[in-house]
Amino acid sequence: MKQSELFSKTNKSAPKDEESVNAQLLIRGGYIDKLMAGIYSYLPLGFRTFKKIEEIIREEINAVDGQEIFMPSMHPKENWEKTGRWDSLDVLVKIGLGEEKNMALAPTHEEVVAPLAKKFIESYKDLPKAVYHFQNKFRGEKRAKSGILRLREFIMKDLYSFHSSQDDLDRYYDRVSKAYKNIFERMGIGEKTYFTYASGGTFSKYSHEFQAETEAGEDTIYICEKCHIAINKEIIEDLRHTCPQCGNADLRQTKAVEVGNIFKLGTKYSEPFNLVFKDQNGEDKPIIMGCYGIGPQRLMGTIVEIFHDEKGIIWPEAVAPFIVHLIHLGKNQEAEKIYQKLNSEKIEVLFDDREVSAGEKFADADLLGLPYRVIISEKSLTAGGLELKKRNETVSRIVSIDELLKMLK
Amino acid sequence: MKQSELFSKTNKSAPKDEESVNAQLLIRGGYIDKLMAGIYSYLPLGFRTFKKIEEIIREEINAVDGQEIFMPSMHPKENWEKTGRWDSLDVLVKIGLGEEKNMALAPTHEEVVAPLAKKFIESYKDLPKAVYHFQNKFRGEKRAKSGILRLREFIMKDLYSFHSSQDDLDRYYDRVSKAYKNIFERMGIGEKTYFTYASGGTFSKYSHEFQAETEAGEDTIYICEKCHIAINKEIIEDLRHTCPQCGNADLRQTKAVEVGNIFKLGTKYSEPFNLVFKDQNGEDKPIIMGCYGIGPQRLMGTIVEIFHDEKGIIWPEAVAPFIVHLIHLGKNQEAEKIYQKLNSEKIEVLFDDREVSAGEKFADADLLGLPYRVIISEKSLTAGGLELKKRNETVSRIVSIDELLKMLK
Repeated sequence: MKQSELFSKTNKSAPKDEESVNAQLLIRGGYIDKLMAGIYSYLPLGFRTFKKIEEIIREEINAVDGQEIFMPSMHPKENWEKTGRWDSLDVLVKIGLGEEKNMALAPTHEEVVAPLAKKFIESYKDLPKAVYHFQNKFRGEKRAKSGILRLREFIMKDLYSFHSSQDDLDRYYDRVSKAYKNIFERMGIGEKTYFTYASGGTFSKYSHEFQAETEAGEDTIYICEKCHIAINKEIIEDLRHTCPQCGNADLRQTKAVEVGNIFKLGTKYSEPFNLVFKDQNGEDKPIIMGCYGIGPQRLMGTIVEIFHDEKGIIWPEAVAPFIVHLIHLGKNQEAEKIYQKLNSEKIEVLFDDREVSAGEKFADADLLGLPYRVIISEKSLTAGGLELKKRNETVSRIVSIDELLKMLK
Repeated sequence: MKQSELFSKTNKSAPKDEESVNAQLLIRGGYIDKLMAGIYSYLPLGFRTFKKIEEIIREEINAVDGQEIFMPSMHPKENWEKTGRWDSLDVLVKIGLGEEKNMALAPTHEEVVAPLAKKFIESYKDLPKAVYHFQNKFRGEKRAKSGILRLREFIMKDLYSFHSSQDDLDRYYDRVSKAYKNIFERMGIGEKTYFTYASGGTFSKYSHEFQAETEAGEDTIYICEKCHIAINKEIIEDLRHTCPQCGNADLRQTKAVEVGNIFKLGTKYSEPFNLVFKDQNGEDKPIIMGCYGIGPQRLMGTIVEIFHDEKGIIWPEAVAPFIVHLIHLGKNQEAEKIYQKLNSEKIEVLFDDREVSAGEKFADADLLGLPYRVIISEKSLTAGGLELKKRNETVSRIVSIDELLKMLK
């Protein structure tokens, strides 16, 4: 894409009411736009990154037999009354088409997926099953000041699984845990993301979540470097400050963002909806459920918090909106040819064809943070080709177009 | 995919409160599920069709330089007050995080996209631009009884364009009209869909919309077969019952569903938000806007209304959830091999591996309506291969696996 044709533009200054690094850089880069506190638009560059994150999640969830569906965000009050959450969930946004508030704007979908599963699951032969969707979620968050890490409206990938036994849920829960690890690794935050012990388990003493280490995080975790796991602060006293896996007491305290949650729900939501199956003896048994969430926007914000410097974002390749930032300096016709060549080779390239100064182009390239900056100028051509600099490196070098293509394929 | 593993199942009877053919067939087929009046879930098969429709629309809108973004569905009241639609739009769903209703759940996005464009469009050099998104829309429809043709919550592809002159808008409007024609043709409803003259034009006497002919439609149109265009009933008296293009008075009255709308907004939304650009003389001029909508779910419902018989749906290939319905009768190991072979050749196949009667399998195949029904049985193998019947034909014939593959590639 040509930068001169892009809908968004970069901004020199960050908005005054944005404290978080992720929102500052993403807004300055024209990736996102703030409509209200906790509510943002995703512009062409931001949407491309969003889609790449979504597609990585989709591939990994499909690989653990998740079937994609799409459930609505307006839910009847009665479903939420059945589980008691109409009154107990303080972030629940209650609405109505008339004066009466008789619907919920979904913050999660247990109240719809459980009665939905009841329509199709009859016997043990129908189990296990797993369905998921990417759908808007709404939460009446009191504080929304962490950019896109804590939103009032956001997309969530929520996966729900249905099992005939606790053992079967346990096995599936482990499969999803591995899928989540793959997701974070593919996005470049694998090393920074820890399988974390937390409170609130239904069957075992602890539940688990995935926490990504960053100063922007609202959670405090204790990391065991030996096991590459962490413990949420809420249970560290309980564990006497030791790793639950190896007993190591040399734990490192740090801040983190919860980037994924996995939860053994048990029969918490199957009971209110009488979600049962007939076992091999023809007896009705409650279905055992699990739920597993990941928010693509929170992931995008976390990636920016982890990968940036004072000049801007440093995208990992897998989630960069474009791979190459092609910049032409001065007037030369070669730039357009290189741009066409990269496009024809299916390499995602943003071509800075604007008539602005070299300094402005470099500053924008650093701010936008695409992995490969490729300059074409009289100087580079005289030196034998293109000047290549990776965003996460400081040195540049001259490469031919063939060398560049080889590198990017 | 194996039918035994599918989350959804077919239902023998239609729900009592569904009058419309599209909802009856889609619910019986396990494509969708009704949560409330006008609010449905899209199950694995329905979601696959939804995604195919979405992708066709995306390709065609990208081809007319639309840049994909994602705007939120919760909007501040003040934006809607600026345009006067907070009070004038009766289907607007008003909500609040607290007691006060100070937000709108978006039924459309002019109130967000106009101030958004204002942040990036400065001069005539920044024009034209076009952005679109697929996002939930909410409408407090009084009557919601046409299945997925008239919903309270639905996805809309809404495209917005920005221009420096009326001429430029006119040119773009024509490009989008052609893109819409491509969309309807690719989905198999091109012949049944008419470019239709309607009331409400801002610049010219008439506006235009795309109407698909079906008895399920709520609109009445008059078709000129010569020009393959139509006139909405609301302006037929005005036109003295003649075709505005050729003067033909031999018009055919029929029912239709509005499957796409294109609208020259002019400055209706740029003025309240002071959305201006500097022209070549450095003077501020209001930006001229256009908007263009298509709802994937309404399209899905319309396709079912047009393509079905008494036994079930008859999907056009481009939007069928799977292309082949592979059915095995009796016990044979060949079926699994054929299934693997089709999968390895990237042919989308639903494999009915269930242990149910042949009659039930045939009835379900007709109900689900995949384009190619392929039976593998002792009988077919003895006859030399597989028994192939297209859903829209009555005769079956024996083909070899190689012939089948050749036909499907």
